[in-house]
Amino acid sequence: MKRILIVGAGRSSQDLIKYLATFDKGKAFNILLIDKSIESLDLYKQAYGNVETLQIDLNYGELPEKHIRESDMVISMLPAFMHYDIARECVTNYTHFATASYVTDEIQSLHEEAVAKNLVVLMECGLDPGLDHMSAMRVIDDIRQSGYPLHAFETFTGGLLAPSNEDNPWNYKFTWNPRNVVLAGHGVVKFIQEGRYKYIPYHKLFKRTELIHIPGYGYFEGYANRDSLRYLDVYNLRGIKTLYRGTLRRSGFSEAWDIFVQLGATDDSYLMEEVGHMTHRQFINSFLSYNPKDSVELKLAHYANIGVESREMYMLKWLNIFSDEPVGLHKGTPAQILEHILKKKWTMGDRDKDMIVMWHKFEYIKDGELKKIHSHMVCTGEDAYHTAMSKTVGLPLAIVISKFLKGALNLSGVTIPTSPNVYKPVLKELEKHDIIFKEYEPDE
Amino acid sequence: MKRILIVGAGRSSQDLIKYLATFDKGKAFNILLIDKSIESLDLYKQAYGNVETLQIDLNYGELPEKHIRESDMVISMLPAFMHYDIARECVTNYTHFATASYVTDEIQSLHEEAVAKNLVVLMECGLDPGLDHMSAMRVIDDIRQSGYPLHAFETFTGGLLAPSNEDNPWNYKFTWNPRNVVLAGHGVVKFIQEGRYKYIPYHKLFKRTELIHIPGYGYFEGYANRDSLRYLDVYNLRGIKTLYRGTLRRSGFSEAWDIFVQLGATDDSYLMEEVGHMTHRQFINSFLSYNPKDSVELKLAHYANIGVESREMYMLKWLNIFSDEPVGLHKGTPAQILEHILKKKWTMGDRDKDMIVMWHKFEYIKDGELKKIHSHMVCTGEDAYHTAMSKTVGLPLAIVISKFLKGALNLSGVTIPTSPNVYKPVLKELEKHDIIFKEYEPDE
Repeated sequence: MKRILIVGAGRSSQDLIKYLATFDKGKAFNILLIDKSIESLDLYKQAYGNVETLQIDLNYGELPEKHIRESDMVISMLPAFMHYDIARECVTNYTHFATASYVTDEIQSLHEEAVAKNLVVLMECGLDPGLDHMSAMRVIDDIRQSGYPLHAFETFTGGLLAPSNEDNPWNYKFTWNPRNVVLAGHGVVKFIQEGRYKYIPYHKLFKRTELIHIPGYGYFEGYANRDSLRYLDVYNLRGIKTLYRGTLRRSGFSEAWDIFVQLGATDDSYLMEEVGHMTHRQFINSFLSYNPKDSVELKLAHYANIGVESREMYMLKWLNIFSDEPVGLHKGTPAQILEHILKKKWTMGDRDKDMIVMWHKFEYIKDGELKKIHSHMVCTGEDAYHTAMSKTVGLPLAIVISKFLKGALNLSGVTIPTSPNVYKPVLKELEKHDIIFKEYEPDE
Repeated sequence: MKRILIVGAGRSSQDLIKYLATFDKGKAFNILLIDKSIESLDLYKQAYGNVETLQIDLNYGELPEKHIRESDMVISMLPAFMHYDIARECVTNYTHFATASYVTDEIQSLHEEAVAKNLVVLMECGLDPGLDHMSAMRVIDDIRQSGYPLHAFETFTGGLLAPSNEDNPWNYKFTWNPRNVVLAGHGVVKFIQEGRYKYIPYHKLFKRTELIHIPGYGYFEGYANRDSLRYLDVYNLRGIKTLYRGTLRRSGFSEAWDIFVQLGATDDSYLMEEVGHMTHRQFINSFLSYNPKDSVELKLAHYANIGVESREMYMLKWLNIFSDEPVGLHKGTPAQILEHILKKKWTMGDRDKDMIVMWHKFEYIKDGELKKIHSHMVCTGEDAYHTAMSKTVGLPLAIVISKFLKGALNLSGVTIPTSPNVYKPVLKELEKHDIIFKEYEPDE
């Protein structure tokens, strides 16, 4: 039996652990699970006979080298900044390494040594990055093999709330790291449109959205991600005319969210004054001009150029941002305070389900004509604990790892899942778990 | 004779050097001038018998300790980041130090040692900071002595172009460091208005200007500076209801400048692609959506929500930003490229004069009524070389230093010119040089 060390047993690890622990009826792998929470560890230990556990808080303690050396593969489910040190130790100790996170320059620097030692440092094997690579490259390679030039590639992913009967005008709650959601889009956005480099500053990002229709699921809107240009090299797309990566939200979200951006309420660069005495209403008012004659509501409507009775105003009121309720923090940046206020309404309830939506658009030239292919995948969580996020992050990673450890994949060095020998079998296996990409020529 | 070491003989040092070299008919001070430019040094050496020179480029070489030790006072006219090392050496070697720049935490850390050695580290003695402290504290102390509570203090300074007959719809050129002008306002702005802390994000700064009338000079507009709250302690203003510091421009400037801000063209955080082939027009277009049917002019007018024939559009066209002229750089951030384009039109010609405008507004409560005092100073340069900027930065510093070295001021430790025993004689002396603050109760 192969030995796998998994670091991090949080909610997003559950489908990964389950898949690997039950693979080949539990006869394939012995798993050592390390986490700071003894409760999380005990759940897995009780559930699976082939899972051992060890409690370490890696914020303070170190991962014992002995456990790395004794493992065939180490999987890090920790925050991204913690990956490099572990990967470095793995390569030193002749152990494979895997994670769902982006390749960094630091990680890339391990490539030569990993190749020389016949090790894999498997990266970007989760949802986004991960599933996006696999599902996009399948279509891109198809188009390339047919000999038609690829003209445009756009890709969007969203971690959303599944439709429900609740009156929530945002159709949104935090289904993963709330801080990342509040800070989403900071920094400049770069992409290519019809052969031209284009840049969008943060304060215009949520105004410049694209409307996207997904058959059977309705309308979504996409805003651009930070740097699409990276994918020129990753997907070998030099010369492509349009390249755009973005994030999906339900239609109507961005226009209302933009009001927070316009206020400066998502700024994370400075601490506000006297937060201990601040109410929701005062938080909002601190970004608006002084004017004792007008209400905060009226000043905001004027500032944001929306009607006092508009849908956006209703969305803001639903969040209680005009209430005299204390914020409940002692200090904080605007972004931290906003996150705290939003959590009061945007935390998933027991009956809430999350939903992952991924959508690609490809354009290629066939006989002088522009042809389109769309591809989408929608995955809905079972409940607030068994989430689509955990499933779509954990299963691709688990499947690549299990195939690799069973000898079905030939990988070496720092690797991401963009080649057919990886994505073909993995996408096929994912379909058994209802993670299915539908590819089709759209009606215009 | 006292010995003064001046580091930095650039254009902004000329009035400082002239004042000190000719003080008491040249019999008061021996001056050693250090600079990287032999041409600059030779000019001063030829002009004044009591000025010796030494060529050192302090970006590469060190200031010889010997010269610090032999001087009574060292004055740094170098960029602000270079002050601390020199000040540190001065305090170590029992030499006084002076500059026009802000006190930093590093500089402040020298205070105790300087006091113990009976040395002064004289800071913030130029225009802004400097003249603003002196002229504002004169009025603030007057109001305090009368026993009336100070309700509000607002202060604005602008480095502008003096009125001329040239057709320049901006009424503006770069009269000092162009990079600082392009980046002005970056980061969040904090101030206090009617007892409430207020914050303005960068992308709204140039929309939230204040209209200011200066008798005899017309209308100006002011936008807020980064952090007004610092002056709560510096001026001992805790409890004041309104505190606001800002920058002055001629009326109409901010609305047009805001278009660059809205485009993201003042961003300094990333390098643009393919700058070597970029034209002015392409630079602007890279921030606008792709749309082959509309001109860049039309797209910009739509983006900025201005008329195609509006005054702002004329101002932009006057800058040639829609021309097919190559930018002329090989690489750059948006801010660097914009600066380069603007310099082509905004560089002072031989006949251009600069103009410094400072304006204060004070409100206090007398017998339950709100009373106002305004104060302003306008100083116009002689030509493009003998600038008002050099005069208003250099003279206050030179006057404080000469009075101190002649024993007329009792100063010790890290010091800024906020006390009456400094500002009273200095403001009086400045009036002889036509730097005059007019204080008056405004008509409403």
